[in-house]
Amino acid sequence: MYIENESEWLSRLFDDLWPVTRSITGPGLRKSLKIFREEIPLEIEGVPSGTDVFDWEIPPEWHIYEGRLTGPDRNIYADFDETNLAVVNYSKAVNGSFSLDELKPHLYTDPSVPDATPYVTSYYERTWGFCLPHQVYEELPEGEYYAHIDSEFVDGELNFGHTVLPGESDEEVLLSSYLCHPSLANNELSGPLVLAALYHRLSEWENRQFTYRFVLCPETIGSIAYLSEYGDHLKDALVGGLVLTCLGGPSESLSYKTSRRENALIDKTVQNLKEQSDKGFKIRQFTPTGGSDERQYCSPGFNLPVGQIARTVYGQYDGYHNSNDDKEFMGIDSLIQSVDLIENLLQSFEYAGYYENQKPYGEPMLGKRDLYPNINSPQQWERANSVVNEQEFLNRILTVLNYSDGEHAMVEIADDYGCPMDEMIPVVETLLDHNLLQRVLTSYDK
Amino acid sequence: MYIENESEWLSRLFDDLWPVTRSITGPGLRKSLKIFREEIPLEIEGVPSGTDVFDWEIPPEWHIYEGRLTGPDRNIYADFDETNLAVVNYSKAVNGSFSLDELKPHLYTDPSVPDATPYVTSYYERTWGFCLPHQVYEELPEGEYYAHIDSEFVDGELNFGHTVLPGESDEEVLLSSYLCHPSLANNELSGPLVLAALYHRLSEWENRQFTYRFVLCPETIGSIAYLSEYGDHLKDALVGGLVLTCLGGPSESLSYKTSRRENALIDKTVQNLKEQSDKGFKIRQFTPTGGSDERQYCSPGFNLPVGQIARTVYGQYDGYHNSNDDKEFMGIDSLIQSVDLIENLLQSFEYAGYYENQKPYGEPMLGKRDLYPNINSPQQWERANSVVNEQEFLNRILTVLNYSDGEHAMVEIADDYGCPMDEMIPVVETLLDHNLLQRVLTSYDK
Amino acid sequence: MYIENESEWLSRLFDDLWPVTRSITGPGLRKSLKIFREEIPLEIEGVPSGTDVFDWEIPPEWHIYEGRLTGPDRNIYADFDETNLAVVNYSKAVNGSFSLDELKPHLYTDPSVPDATPYVTSYYERTWGFCLPHQVYEELPEGEYYAHIDSEFVDGELNFGHTVLPGESDEEVLLSSYLCHPSLANNELSGPLVLAALYHRLSEWENRQFTYRFVLCPETIGSIAYLSEYGDHLKDALVGGLVLTCLGGPSESLSYKTSRRENALIDKTVQNLKEQSDKGFKIRQFTPTGGSDERQYCSPGFNLPVGQIARTVYGQYDGYHNSNDDKEFMGIDSLIQSVDLIENLLQSFEYAGYYENQKPYGEPMLGKRDLYPNINSPQQWERANSVVNEQEFLNRILTVLNYSDGEHAMVEIADDYGCPMDEMIPVVETLLDHNLLQRVLTSYDK
Repeated sequence: MYIENESEWLSRLFDDLWPVTRSITGPGLRKSLKIFREEIPLEIEGVPSGTDVFDWEIPPEWHIYEGRLTGPDRNIYADFDETNLAVVNYSKAVNGSFSLDELKPHLYTDPSVPDATPYVTSYYERTWGFCLPHQVYEELPEGEYYAHIDSEFVDGELNFGHTVLPGESDEEVLLSSYLCHPSLANNELSGPLVLAALYHRLSEWENRQFTYRFVLCPETIGSIAYLSEYGDHLKDALVGGLVLTCLGGPSESLSYKTSRRENALIDKTVQNLKEQSDKGFKIRQFTPTGGSDERQYCSPGFNLPVGQIARTVYGQYDGYHNSNDDKEFMGIDSLIQSVDLIENLLQSFEYAGYYENQKPYGEPMLGKRDLYPNINSPQQWERANSVVNEQEFLNRILTVLNYSDGEHAMVEIADDYGCPMDEMIPVVETLLDHNLLQRVLTSYDK
Repeated sequence: MYIENESEWLSRLFDDLWPVTRSITGPGLRKSLKIFREEIPLEIEGVPSGTDVFDWEIPPEWHIYEGRLTGPDRNIYADFDETNLAVVNYSKAVNGSFSLDELKPHLYTDPSVPDATPYVTSYYERTWGFCLPHQVYEELPEGEYYAHIDSEFVDGELNFGHTVLPGESDEEVLLSSYLCHPSLANNELSGPLVLAALYHRLSEWENRQFTYRFVLCPETIGSIAYLSEYGDHLKDALVGGLVLTCLGGPSESLSYKTSRRENALIDKTVQNLKEQSDKGFKIRQFTPTGGSDERQYCSPGFNLPVGQIARTVYGQYDGYHNSNDDKEFMGIDSLIQSVDLIENLLQSFEYAGYYENQKPYGEPMLGKRDLYPNINSPQQWERANSVVNEQEFLNRILTVLNYSDGEHAMVEIADDYGCPMDEMIPVVETLLDHNLLQRVLTSYDK
Repeated sequence: MYIENESEWLSRLFDDLWPVTRSITGPGLRKSLKIFREEIPLEIEGVPSGTDVFDWEIPPEWHIYEGRLTGPDRNIYADFDETNLAVVNYSKAVNGSFSLDELKPHLYTDPSVPDATPYVTSYYERTWGFCLPHQVYEELPEGEYYAHIDSEFVDGELNFGHTVLPGESDEEVLLSSYLCHPSLANNELSGPLVLAALYHRLSEWENRQFTYRFVLCPETIGSIAYLSEYGDHLKDALVGGLVLTCLGGPSESLSYKTSRRENALIDKTVQNLKEQSDKGFKIRQFTPTGGSDERQYCSPGFNLPVGQIARTVYGQYDGYHNSNDDKEFMGIDSLIQSVDLIENLLQSFEYAGYYENQKPYGEPMLGKRDLYPNINSPQQWERANSVVNEQEFLNRILTVLNYSDGEHAMVEIADDYGCPMDEMIPVVETLLDHNLLQRVLTSYDK
């Protein structure tokens, strides 16, 4: 499938997904996965409720039908039909009258953003509750309230979707995002939308060195379930990966959180692009204390070379986890800028690994391959310097040849030389064409 | 034995030890060891004179009975009965008349501290001599002096004392101090006194991870003799150690000299406490050019993970190696502050090693163990922040779990996270209690 | 052969070599090698034209007899008899009339140094050409020119010369310089002249730890040919080496380009002398993009521990590759200063390797060897400090003994202690004399 207008396509897809009441299980999650299956060839799988996944257990599905908090003045102060944030995610059913004091422990607000409905969850402890703007909460009249939530817990399954775009090598790159928050934009839909767009971009590449695995799952329990089934395979096959999150919003650059290894090739590639170019990456050091599914991929038993990439980072903007995080805040244009930068990063990563100079004894004779000026005179080099960096290109060739011994990764060579990794691609391609370089496949992730 | 009043106990012990004429061998050394044997269960051993210990030979015992320098004016200018510093330690006997010029090569003073009698030794070259204040020396009248030293060299033994306080593991921590200077306080008695106090402190601990070995021996030749007998055992068993020296005096912080390895876990633990807390440790890099018995423990054939800890460091105060180094200068209170800090350091060191997360695949489910808030709402985290660092404690838990892979020592995890090692103890204890962590015994000193 | 007056000897040798028309092959190269064979016992070898040497092929010999460019005004604008730079090196024969426009593509100048004849080569592409000062070129009259170059390409050989000065060990140090530029001084003759002087200096040493290999060959193709024959031997035997180039000129210090390894012992030795002494070395990091034969010695298939040493570095002075690079610019005195510094560097390098303390258990008893004061008194150390660094020498002894465990190279010990490597030589010699240290031969280049 060819996407003619990426912007319109993303906008339409956003609008289809926005109103769906997602959670970590249940019909909303399944519906969202099916919407994506229309656009990329997702295989949707399910893990039954009650299944042990490592230290966790798949919870029952949550089905929610209605939720409404009616005041003593008959005003409706929280209404699931108006926003699916109004009911605590995984709230149990309730049907009854409560005084304001009895009610208060069940009401959630975010005083720091008083006009917004916060997003609150209680997956593993059965309780009920409503979420509402703090400014509404402050004005609640005394009296008898009627709380009505019609929900149930049902034996079912936890679902995730995934697909693979094959490349020359079986070595895999993982692109993973989460699907579990209801109507939130930057911190929910931005990741899966960028992932879908990247699927289409990468399928247009002339050739792919790596096989690309795309995963959509609910956060935390979903990636744990995924690892429970595919973790051993990933340990064998993965050479790098990215968790996609919060890829919209007003920030001007991408923010990369390193893998737990901190010096995996994917980490080094981003570091290189940050330091050697003006693409404006920011780097956050790995931490297990906050973040997204990289916390699972980078748990010590797996320790996969998976970083996390964001634009307007969770917890660092006012709309985080509340109703202000909408389409306007996210911005379709921001998504496309993210797609551009991540595509360039993945292209750079394709070449970031290990190579071997095929003529390692002395310098290869570049002149006979038309890669070196055959006459050595002052004019020659002056000419070279005035034309498009003939001298610079030669210097990069000599540098790549000298250090390509299977021990220095190309991204390290680029770092030492002081060149952004994406600009090394034509140098490597030229030397591969002349059979002066050969890729060392097995040593990618030393 | 329970010490009711540590200060009084140390003061009394000091007073018993102070007048004894110690040397590297002989009756004074034996008497001092026996005084300590009353307080801690020392086993006293002897190595016969003439025994080869590595590149050295145990010298004969030195017995000193009298020493007096009488002037032409019948004044006594140096008197062993008044201070045992008055005779050069290991001085041979002399009995005869000398002109002032003949005498001068046998008189020792310290012009930089003119009111003090210096401490001078000549263990391995037979000579005789007196020590006196420089201001007395300057006023010596011309005329005939009578020098009388009654001493002898006797085949006997070199003695040392040691004892072991067992712990859960056979892995040992060494605490070693020296006993060989006569009436000197900071640079002699402070070390053995702190060692004795630590013995009692550690014997009160609820449990000890390590076995603790306490050694008292004469400096240099004593630790060489000790290594000659117990060096192989120490190479097998030792995970860390401290040479205790100069632990009194006016300095406000402890000064730690690293082991030769510079990055042994004991070194890292002190470094951590220095950098992450305000306990005020100072660090000196290892050097073999000066110091105490760590020069022997850290000789290249042993290279034990043994640092040296001091307060008012040898060579850095006026009273060093002279009669001004007395009880008042040392201060019993300073000793107790040293005991407190070293006890805290040893407690931190008990937890500084390697652990393995027992649920390493994905994050463990902390909620079911009451280690994680089960409802995720803005209020929850606000509450956490206002109460006693619930969020901070959780972050430490997540950090410890993620990095406890048997490859990162706990003190390194604490460093990277930015937390003093002693504050990590409750985190580790909590996770041990929940069987989420297990100590890796054998890899302590990687 | 003993050189009585090094300066006169170098000056005479320079004058003999200067007029010879060298190239990468041919009679001029052979003649130059033979001139050197009169001074040092060079063995001269040849590799036949057409031989494959790795990725290269030995070209035919270039024989040049005459070269003259006559103008329409009968003036001679370029004359090989006047300077052998006037004809492009490896120019093919030509004999014919050309208009100025037809001629211009065959004329080479260096506009940045308008009064000098540039040095231009075209070894691997057959063309013809003249070199002349840019200011002459600018004034060339219109009209018919007569271009005459009498040269031919002859099957013959490429020659190089080498010799070995044996030492106690078979481990080798390489000193290599190039011989292929015609009448150029700093960037041609300075290297071979310094090499010849070093041969004589080193042959006067009382003993040589290493075997020294001296190589003179044409640049690039010559060292590739040399490696093709002796590369395997060098991989086995070499512990360090220097390419000598541009060792004259006005610069006041030597400039060292590291080996590709960057931390070989030879690199560390120069680094030590730079940082711990005021000998004024500069350091350039290795790069394969420019330089001399270290580009071949440090190609990834060999990766030999060979650095390059220069004074007034190629490309960094006006006379580079033109007729201004003459004897006056180079300076015989500059050469001798270079010889002095390199000799000191090589002496330092002889001791820079690994040693083992023969008494590693505890400190050796230095007193019985008269290396330690036998009486410990304030006066002793004061005396020591006032005399020539008795205390400092003892500290160096203790430091060397402690760290000589076969794992720390002497140059690293010197670095850590803060002492120039050449000042460590008497310390090491003292300890070798007392059998307290033993050289570890096989581990030189860990």
